[in-house]
This record gives sequence, C-alpha cells and structure tokens, in this order.
Amino acid sequence: MDFAAELKSLKDQIRYRSRIVTPGVFKNIVISGMGGSGVVGRIFAEIYSKFPVVVVHDYHVPDFVDSNTLFIAISYSGNTEETLSACEEAEERNASIVAITSGGSLARKNCQVIRIPPGLQPRSALGYMLMPLVNTFLNPSQEDIERTHLILKEMDENHSLASKLASEIFKQERFPVVMASSPYRSVAYRWKTQFNENAKILAFSSDFPELNHNETMPLKLSYSLDRFYFIAIKPESQRIRKRVDVTQLVTERTFTAVEPIGDTLLQKLFYLIHLGDYVSYELALLRNIDPSDVSLIEELKRKLQ
Amino acid sequence: MDFAAELKSLKDQIRYRSRIVTPGVFKNIVISGMGGSGVVGRIFAEIYSKFPVVVVHDYHVPDFVDSNTLFIAISYSGNTEETLSACEEAEERNASIVAITSGGSLARKNCQVIRIPPGLQPRSALGYMLMPLVNTFLNPSQEDIERTHLILKEMDENHSLASKLASEIFKQERFPVVMASSPYRSVAYRWKTQFNENAKILAFSSDFPELNHNETMPLKLSYSLDRFYFIAIKPESQRIRKRVDVTQLVTERTFTAVEPIGDTLLQKLFYLIHLGDYVSYELALLRNIDPSDVSLIEELKRKLQ
Repeated sequence: MDFAAELKSLKDQIRYRSRIVTPGVFKNIVISGMGGSGVVGRIFAEIYSKFPVVVVHDYHVPDFVDSNTLFIAISYSGNTEETLSACEEAEERNASIVAITSGGSLARKNCQVIRIPPGLQPRSALGYMLMPLVNTFLNPSQEDIERTHLILKEMDENHSLASKLASEIFKQERFPVVMASSPYRSVAYRWKTQFNENAKILAFSSDFPELNHNETMPLKLSYSLDRFYFIAIKPESQRIRKRVDVTQLVTERTFTAVEPIGDTLLQKLFYLIHLGDYVSYELALLRNIDPSDVSLIEELKRKLQ
Repeated sequence: MDFAAELKSLKDQIRYRSRIVTPGVFKNIVISGMGGSGVVGRIFAEIYSKFPVVVVHDYHVPDFVDSNTLFIAISYSGNTEETLSACEEAEERNASIVAITSGGSLARKNCQVIRIPPGLQPRSALGYMLMPLVNTFLNPSQEDIERTHLILKEMDENHSLASKLASEIFKQERFPVVMASSPYRSVAYRWKTQFNENAKILAFSSDFPELNHNETMPLKLSYSLDRFYFIAIKPESQRIRKRVDVTQLVTERTFTAVEPIGDTLLQKLFYLIHLGDYVSYELALLRNIDPSDVSLIEELKRKLQ
C-alpha cells in the first residue's frame, strides 16, 4: 500500500469495533508503547482520567504496578523491544495484561490480545490502536463515529489547508513548533512526530498554559526566531484562548491558528490528528522525500542487536 | 539578591529538612505546579513510583482525584492562578492537600503548608520545593545530602564545563536540544526551561529510547541541522548508552556528552540540574541579557487580568 492510501485508511479505522473484554477490577492503568504506537497512550491518558493513567515509553514499568494494574501493551509490530520488556515486568507483577498488536511476539502472549490488521506503518495505524481504548472506556455513539468518518473523508478529498501550511513551512525551511492545550496536547506531540517521521525534519511541541511560564521571554528575545513556524491549535477554554492572544501581543509574534472541526471531542481530535498527518505528508513531497522511508531506524535496530 | 547568588543558594537548599507530616492513607499522588515550580513535580514523578504520581500543569485536576488522593500544590509565589484553580478542585474532591509555597494565597489554605523561604525567583528555589518530597518519600542519608552539598559547592567555585557549553552554543547561535533517559528526562526538561528563562532562547528536550522512534531520520535528513546543539546526558543503563552511540553512528551526528558526577541518584540529579543552571546563566551573560529578567511574563499576567 502506498503512503497516501495508508493515510486514507484512517477514516475506516475509526469504525474498528474491538474493545477490551471485561478487564476485572483494577485501580490504575499503565499503557506502554513507543513512537507511532506510543502516542496512542498519550492521547488516551489526556482524554480519560477516571483512573490514574500512566504512560510508559521505556523498558521498565513504575514500582506501583501490581495486581491492581490494568497494563496495556501497544506495539503495532508486536516486536518493539522496549514494550516487550515492560510487558514482561508487568506480567511478573501480576498485572492484568491486554495487548494491542498486529502480530509478533506480543500476539503470542498469554493474555487478551486485540489483534489489529497488519500491513501499515505503525504511525498510519493510530485508529486501529486507539479505538479499542475509546470503545472500552468512552463508548462513543455510532452517530459520532460516522460523523468522524465523514470529517476524515472530506479531508482525504480536500486538504488544501494542510498543503498551505506545508508550503509555508517549506518555503523558508522552518521548524514547526506546535502549541496546544488540553485535550489536544498529545495531538501537538503527534504532529511533531509526524513531521519527524514523514517529512524528516526536526519539529517540536509545546503546551499552554505551561509555555507561558518559560517560553514567553524567548518568543520575543531568542535569536533566529524566523527559523521557526509557530502553529497554535485553538484552545477549547476561553481562558486559554486569551492566553494565546496575549502571548502573541506581548511577544509581537504571530502564531498560525488551527481550529478543530467537529461537534464532539472524538471528531475534533481525529480532525486535528489527520490534519497533522497531511501537513507532514505534503511537506515530505515538497522536500522530495519518501514519507514512508524508515531505513535509518531499521539500520539502528540492526546495529543494536 | 543577584542571580549568581540565587544560583549559589542551591547547595544550602538541599539541606532543607522539611517533610510532609503523615499524610494519612492515600492511593495516588497528584502534583500541581507551573514553570519553575512545576518542574519539581516532573522530577519527583520520575524518581518515585511506589504510587501512581500524576503531574498537572493546568487549571484542572484529573477525574480520578478523590479522598484517596494526596494532592501536592507547589507554587513558589503562592499566587499562580493555574495551581490555585487546581487546588480548589482538589479540595472540592476531598483530597488530602499539602501546599509547598513561600506565601501568597496558597499559604493561607486550610491544609498542611510547607512554608519555604521567600525572596528568590521560583526557578532558583528548586531545592526548597523538591527536598520536602525527597525527605518524605526517599529519606536520603545525612551523608548523601552533605556529599551533594559538596558537589554543588565545587560547581559554584568552578563551572568551566558550563562556560564551555554556553560558549559553543553562543558562537553559532544554536538551539540546544537536551537528550536524556530515565531517571534524567525531567532534568533535560529543566535544562530546556532554564535556557528559556535565563538565556531567553528557544530550547528543546527529548528522551531516549523514545526519540529513536521518531527523531532518528530527521537527525540525518532535516534541513539546517547545524543550527542545533545536541547535548546527550550519559544514560545510566548500558542498553541506552548503546542507543546513544548507534544513533550518532547512523545519523553521522555528534552529540555533546554530559556525564553526571556523584555516587547516588540525589548527587547525580542535583549535579546535572546545577550544571544546566550554569550553562543557561553563562549563555545569558554571553548574550548580554539579564538572566533574572521576567518583564514579559509580568506584562502577560497583567494583561490577562
């Protein structure tokens, strides 16, 4: 499948109906994953907090993990060494384990395995990995899912906004800094990683209101500010919208505003995620770079063995 | 107090003996704080995980917060609006509240208040804010604290390594990217914020092994890589040290290595934190910028009211 087709599959992924079967009694949730699989945990932890949700992107699990923990291992390939290591530790601590994977060693674990379709790059399978968590814990309506499908479909047909953003970043070879506030901070991080993985450029994410406490002065006084392209995802909260405006005022800087489309969190979240997918994809094309190329990561993995 | 004197006070701050009096029974810890006060929660969450520790840098607390939560509000001034808002929500949920502050509204809360000395910039009071948590939950030996004191004192007397790093960043006006792995990821974030607040430049942090999953390709293929200065804090784990080496190999890039000094986590953590303090301070001096200037943040706060 070519990379454009992978991107276009997201609208169908959100119809994926799998869910975690009753996981028993638990008091906290730990989600382990790296890169394109790991961002799923970050997104979920930001939109669901009825239990403490701790996201791990490392070889080890926190000390508190025990039989009261629902441990969710997410690895698209099923062979990510960090995630397998964390999962083994969680097993030793008698946590309830759920694996979300398309195959590999993780699919052979003696636990509930949610086996998602193979054949994509992990970063293009976000819907397959996220929806089982959303279905289980947030239970969206069929109407919400179909409306989200439609929003993504429309973007597949027309993403001129994404092309415009990509072109503005490209023409002066700038580095995107994506600024967002709750519940879209992890979306800003997803944009950063998509710029990294698809367009192969350095990119950064930052969040309101925290950034006001440290990045306000540099946004006016740093050197070479013209090398950065600041994107601000429109905040849900009026109080933080004012912060975005006042920050631009006192730093005499303009952020490119990106506004979520949709009526519900699910719709807006996936709209924003997919927009970032297309901006990074279009930027790769402008740079004449293959967005699907992961050769250096493969080389790194070989040399680590 | 001038800013150099503030920095030099850190070695004495680590002798601060306050601790949380028996907080009763709790099942999770939520730490709220912003900027220079907020980084304290991030550092603590990384070195202590016998309970789920969730760090909040926003107006609101997670849904799970209830009477089983130990809620620790950290605001040096005691008047940070986000922290006060989060603290009010935690009170409404009947959490056990502890405040760490030098005064303001937070000091007048009807809860356990750890009242730390006033008169510093929040970012220069990290020891006062962190040590009550360390004393309560990690109980370091007197010898460990005195050894840490000595390491910091030696750096106050000679920080030629910091001057060298600052000079390398300054001479080509580069943007620091500080890379670290557990248990020093929050230290990399602290360096980023100190570059922001003291030297008034944009700066970034990133962490191993996660960065291998997204930043490997851009570290070789991004444009304008010479505008960044990559600093890698030496990993504790052999497996991640190898990752740092192989990443440099496959991307044909060199990271400046920074090695923690000390025998214990406490010593190494404070050594690294203090080194970042000095690098950012020296860079401010090279830029002919007042490291203590927070005028734009004050202006922003006025305009938000």
